[in-house]
Amino acid sequence: MTFTKPTLVLDESRVRRNINRMAARARRFGLRFRPHFKTHQSWHIGRIFREAGVTAITVSSMDMASYFAADGWTDILIAFPFNVLEAEELTRLSEGRTLGVLVESPEGLPVIARNATAPVDVWIKINVGLNRAGADWNDERLLVRICRETARQPRLRLRGLLTHNGRTYAARTYEALARSHAEAMRKMRRSRAILDRSGFAGLEISVGDTPSCSRLDDFDGADEMRPGNFVLYDATQLELGSCRENDIAAAVACPVVSVHPSRNEAIIYGGAIHLSKDDVLARDGGRIYGRVCRPRGAGWGPILARTSVTMLSQEHGVITTTPSEIKRIKPGDVLFVLPAHSCLTVDLFPEYVRLDGQRIPTIHGWCM
Amino acid sequence: MTFTKPTLVLDESRVRRNINRMAARARRFGLRFRPHFKTHQSWHIGRIFREAGVTAITVSSMDMASYFAADGWTDILIAFPFNVLEAEELTRLSEGRTLGVLVESPEGLPVIARNATAPVDVWIKINVGLNRAGADWNDERLLVRICRETARQPRLRLRGLLTHNGRTYAARTYEALARSHAEAMRKMRRSRAILDRSGFAGLEISVGDTPSCSRLDDFDGADEMRPGNFVLYDATQLELGSCRENDIAAAVACPVVSVHPSRNEAIIYGGAIHLSKDDVLARDGGRIYGRVCRPRGAGWGPILARTSVTMLSQEHGVITTTPSEIKRIKPGDVLFVLPAHSCLTVDLFPEYVRLDGQRIPTIHGWCM
Repeated sequence: MTFTKPTLVLDESRVRRNINRMAARARRFGLRFRPHFKTHQSWHIGRIFREAGVTAITVSSMDMASYFAADGWTDILIAFPFNVLEAEELTRLSEGRTLGVLVESPEGLPVIARNATAPVDVWIKINVGLNRAGADWNDERLLVRICRETARQPRLRLRGLLTHNGRTYAARTYEALARSHAEAMRKMRRSRAILDRSGFAGLEISVGDTPSCSRLDDFDGADEMRPGNFVLYDATQLELGSCRENDIAAAVACPVVSVHPSRNEAIIYGGAIHLSKDDVLARDGGRIYGRVCRPRGAGWGPILARTSVTMLSQEHGVITTTPSEIKRIKPGDVLFVLPAHSCLTVDLFPEYVRLDGQRIPTIHGWCM
Repeated sequence: MTFTKPTLVLDESRVRRNINRMAARARRFGLRFRPHFKTHQSWHIGRIFREAGVTAITVSSMDMASYFAADGWTDILIAFPFNVLEAEELTRLSEGRTLGVLVESPEGLPVIARNATAPVDVWIKINVGLNRAGADWNDERLLVRICRETARQPRLRLRGLLTHNGRTYAARTYEALARSHAEAMRKMRRSRAILDRSGFAGLEISVGDTPSCSRLDDFDGADEMRPGNFVLYDATQLELGSCRENDIAAAVACPVVSVHPSRNEAIIYGGAIHLSKDDVLARDGGRIYGRVCRPRGAGWGPILARTSVTMLSQEHGVITTTPSEIKRIKPGDVLFVLPAHSCLTVDLFPEYVRLDGQRIPTIHGWCM
């Protein structure tokens, strides 16, 4: 493969390995595996999950639900606070499939019920401390109000409690990760106990950040896991210890357009519109936008030591490296960047290019 | 207009006013106006520039050059270090138009000459201190080598010296801005004098960051200006004082999906994949991803005081506001976000929606 401009490259064998490993973990823990498809956003990768026995999926928008429904997925959870302005789309989407929606207050429930044509599963979003979205795990009054309102509405099935413990992304050691996860699990079990006591028995618990799902073994009380990022992993997950370097399954091939040996920097054609401006605090100092590899075979080789993407503008990236490495880089080379955040990077491309050259459209390519 | 999901909304009357104002400034200073089209990336907005008398444009990629060439633009400068891996595209692009390329070392020049079918203008990228790309302004040896190699190659015309003084984005006062700009202008004139003395007379000077072009009057020695962002402006330019609030011509309409009065926060459907993760350090504290307005008429009203987008994940945004404002916000409302960086935000959408409801495709919508 020759890459003449920034290209999202997919190592599908790593994708398959990541999927099979996580599917095996879910089986071992007795959990339903409901992977989040917002990371890969592609029918093709979705089908690899299907081959691994996955039948239930998570998405983060109505558009994504429609996209995957069109490829035959029949159990879809839209894990985003329900947007009442899109309620009409429920009419089409709820027909003939198990559709789950997320709520964190009772107000939207009548709108959901009114627009659904078939029964819709209601999941309550629980805030275990990230303070992004969700009903507080110990807000008994609110939790009970949501359950009561759900029970009152036709075509709504109270299904369970869901959380995303995004605080694990701040855990820089195994111990901190385990502690954060254990605390989240405790809070979820406690929320369920509160509702059980109030007459709403049998609620499921859904959890699923990639750091916890990749490394921890205690999911006691949970019914399903919903990790997403693990399918590709990225420089952030590597930094957190969620994966090894050779689990990272997507990289952006970027042409080198200029080299500045005096400051150990190379400029790549590959900027914020290709990598996104998400960054990660690297152990070896500073915020970086990605790690850098040389081409090897049809893909990329090991991460170059003390080398990273340190600045991004719209189309430019600056790679900072060592005096010895900079001597080996020249304009016209192609370097591979392992992005800080693969979900956002994938969202910037209409397609992946597989190592064999095959083009794999994403949702953005599909709309064409 | 009803917006049910994140939508890029364009106030075209403001676009026209911004264009006319900047065109008048360029005329007043006797400069060629060569606006950077990487901000708006749209044929339609390009045509508004054409109505204002603009005939020469700047782009930042070959793809963008092709896109605007297809709409009849015949004087295009690709203001990005020339990517030799895309040299073959010159064959088609250089034919029948004035095409400019940017170099910062002599090595790529033979490749450019070999692939051009018609004369190509060579601009030398000068680093005046941003240290992103460019030959250092006082590196006489390198500058002369580039000029000599350009003169030796067939079909290459040495045209001028170009810089982007991105350091003005760090200038938080008028005085700091004026100082940074004056220093950049001095360095550019000095580079030209060096080359003049070495036998390369008559080189043009091209400058053009939006903060300087919006506010300063001393472009002595320059031949053209290339601002881009001013066509839409954004929360960053407002913060820097480059524009007034009602010059900002693009906003993202975002549905409110949940409200947390206890922490003065609302969650919007509108995340990193809609706004980009670029941020701006706000005078009133902290890094923010955008300012927030309520709908007014067909567009948006004034910026809400002490209210901004303070956190973004893939699809979620968190708006932090005041106790009095949070009481007025409810799920199902639509709020308008003035993004931190309009260039990156525009790049995330396939189209704008004008206040009259008309859809305006961008380069990403055009590819469909």
